[in-house]
Amino acid sequence: MDGTGTSVTVGLLGLGTVGSGVARILLDQAERISRRSGRRVDVKWALVRDPERPRPGPLPFERITTDVGQILDDPEVTIIVEVMGGIRPTLDYLLEALAKGKDVVTANKALLAEHGTELFAQARRFGRSITFEASVAGGIPIVQAIGQGLAANQVQGLAAIVNGTCNFILTAMTRDGLPYAQALAKAQELGYAEADPTLDVDGTDTAHKLAILAQLAFGATVVTSQIPRQGIDRLLLADIAYATELGYAVKLLALAKLSSAGLELRVAPTLVRRGTPLAEVSGPYNAVRVVGDAVGDTFFYGQGAGSLPTASAVVADIIDVVIGRAGLSFRAMNLWSENGSSPRLASSEQVRSRYYNRFMIADRPGVIAAISRVLGDHGISIASLIQHDPGDDSPPDSPVPLVLLTHLAVEAHLIAALREIDRLDVVHPPSICLGVEE
Amino acid sequence: MDGTGTSVTVGLLGLGTVGSGVARILLDQAERISRRSGRRVDVKWALVRDPERPRPGPLPFERITTDVGQILDDPEVTIIVEVMGGIRPTLDYLLEALAKGKDVVTANKALLAEHGTELFAQARRFGRSITFEASVAGGIPIVQAIGQGLAANQVQGLAAIVNGTCNFILTAMTRDGLPYAQALAKAQELGYAEADPTLDVDGTDTAHKLAILAQLAFGATVVTSQIPRQGIDRLLLADIAYATELGYAVKLLALAKLSSAGLELRVAPTLVRRGTPLAEVSGPYNAVRVVGDAVGDTFFYGQGAGSLPTASAVVADIIDVVIGRAGLSFRAMNLWSENGSSPRLASSEQVRSRYYNRFMIADRPGVIAAISRVLGDHGISIASLIQHDPGDDSPPDSPVPLVLLTHLAVEAHLIAALREIDRLDVVHPPSICLGVEE
Repeated sequence: MDGTGTSVTVGLLGLGTVGSGVARILLDQAERISRRSGRRVDVKWALVRDPERPRPGPLPFERITTDVGQILDDPEVTIIVEVMGGIRPTLDYLLEALAKGKDVVTANKALLAEHGTELFAQARRFGRSITFEASVAGGIPIVQAIGQGLAANQVQGLAAIVNGTCNFILTAMTRDGLPYAQALAKAQELGYAEADPTLDVDGTDTAHKLAILAQLAFGATVVTSQIPRQGIDRLLLADIAYATELGYAVKLLALAKLSSAGLELRVAPTLVRRGTPLAEVSGPYNAVRVVGDAVGDTFFYGQGAGSLPTASAVVADIIDVVIGRAGLSFRAMNLWSENGSSPRLASSEQVRSRYYNRFMIADRPGVIAAISRVLGDHGISIASLIQHDPGDDSPPDSPVPLVLLTHLAVEAHLIAALREIDRLDVVHPPSICLGVEE
Repeated sequence: MDGTGTSVTVGLLGLGTVGSGVARILLDQAERISRRSGRRVDVKWALVRDPERPRPGPLPFERITTDVGQILDDPEVTIIVEVMGGIRPTLDYLLEALAKGKDVVTANKALLAEHGTELFAQARRFGRSITFEASVAGGIPIVQAIGQGLAANQVQGLAAIVNGTCNFILTAMTRDGLPYAQALAKAQELGYAEADPTLDVDGTDTAHKLAILAQLAFGATVVTSQIPRQGIDRLLLADIAYATELGYAVKLLALAKLSSAGLELRVAPTLVRRGTPLAEVSGPYNAVRVVGDAVGDTFFYGQGAGSLPTASAVVADIIDVVIGRAGLSFRAMNLWSENGSSPRLASSEQVRSRYYNRFMIADRPGVIAAISRVLGDHGISIASLIQHDPGDDSPPDSPVPLVLLTHLAVEAHLIAALREIDRLDVVHPPSICLGVEE
């Protein structure tokens, strides 16, 4: 391709962190993008909310607009790049863009997780494509890897660190011994956490991304509310220390496993065996482990957020649209299809794992016996147990932690046992229970 | 896609480890492949050398042939999958297949490294495509990641473990303390090394893969002989132990770095800082680290060889051809182009690195002073130095190892210094010099 074909015109919805990165690559690297896509790619418009805000980016002032109609009604614009986020009015804009014959590139995981079916149906109706490489794990080309590179496989399982905020906080707790609140404050100070970090630390953002991965890898159409999730905000520094002592790192994982019991999906802080690639992912980085029936174990790692890493994924999608690959992939993959056969979800009666449990117990004889008896009654056996001498400095009668690692156990049985244990008068609820990945 | 379109017919050249894996996936997973590619994919022929050899694979006897003409002249066959290896007669078969309008999927790294320009010119002449995901790092979709997923980036550097045999041997030397010869024997016993392992352990196979990666990431057309390479066969167990002591693992790396000095390419055992993802890749696994100007650091990991992992990559390419993506990518990427602008290669005058050096020296006063003087004369400064007491068991007058880690040094200066040091009468050549990656 010589780049001398007609040009392609892009309209950007949003000019924040990611949008300005996209504009920067498309403008500063215009020659490279034209060489790789075969056509010149122009940014004609960028939609913003506040036109007065100073924007040091590369886009000239006259291309910035607050009027979405100016972009959606412009017949020259054939690709809409959505990097504004949010559900409303974003969904309406994209439905309209598709109806007007424009292809959509989006980084919006919440929108796909909640409205994937509606958006993809609209794209099929109007013969357009939606690409979304930037919506999961930023710069890591994981959407393409699962959808194309591993297309010969049935994915059997995946485990992913896809929230950089949580991984930064957990790394700071592990390496620097900071308690949760201080680690969060440090993440906010360094720009790795929002002022309101709720959707990150409670696991919602990770669940959005897992909903997208589940669609890609298993054809499973799930909404976020169907994914059991647990955040990192209840973890104590002690849990991190015990995990370290047992040979594990604690990571907030998006987990998916396909078995005869169905598809198991969950988001939860999880003990990951040290020395395995996932355990060593630190700071704001993201990583995805994918196990396929032919390829075996694979692992993908990179920056999950940030202006240029995320823009790298968005621009790769734009190139795919311009070349024509995006349309072919969109039709072949048939994602969020109304007539797809979504696998059934596994119930907690069928899920089996090893578990880490931390109880706060009264420091007196017989407590360990009482707890092990309840576990035994539910068919759960203990693999290791830690209780440290609280030392002379500890006030008398203050509860002390007891940590148990179980052998493989049925989750429903463990939940029943924990409910019973939390009712013992020598136990101070709530107890913490985390899954273990070897 | 409903899989009810006309079928696509594949001819396999080769039915060894990889070929039988490809046949197995295409036959056993026919429904999956048809769903993902939109058409049924049939294997009509497989070319073998010895038709008498028992083949427990899934392919019926009547589809196995020793006559390549039966495949190449069959107009029903539209995709040739080359998994026979070798340069001749493979090159002729593929040139003829392309001339007859067939698309080519190949796993043959040596052929691409040595004859990429000829093959790709032929494909362009006849409007066909060549795909080669399986040629580098087996099951890891790295060709697609660099060519498409990271297409918004200028790759600035890459470091890859792409020879499972060498990585298995180095892991066995590190973890089990086996000397090189025993580690190699163990690799052969477990099927991770060929009876004649020369092309693996001397770095040639890694150089073939680096030539392909250099084409993909930098548009650099190089043949294997242009890539400086050093094998693992001269490494002593002591080198591994010293590296461990200094905080490094020794890995056979394919290295590429783009700088103002040009493109630096090399294959060499290299000290890799422990705790970084590459250092933790063990056994027969492969991994590729890619640094892009937008995306930053990325890392891809998986099985680099074996029947099904490699077949996973081959079948992904077949799906790409059937969907039509392969043709679009082939034209857009314009690889091994006769009018491409290959970057110039950096000379050793311009290459700078930190280096590990091991000298065998006479155990007597003044030797360290003599060696440091030579290094100092060439502007090379020492970062750390190890010499262990040889102990009373060591025979008197036997040479003892001296290990030096340098600060950043110009390679040409170090080579000159080492030449001078090897001539000192207190030094027993040859000395070992390895690069260091932080």
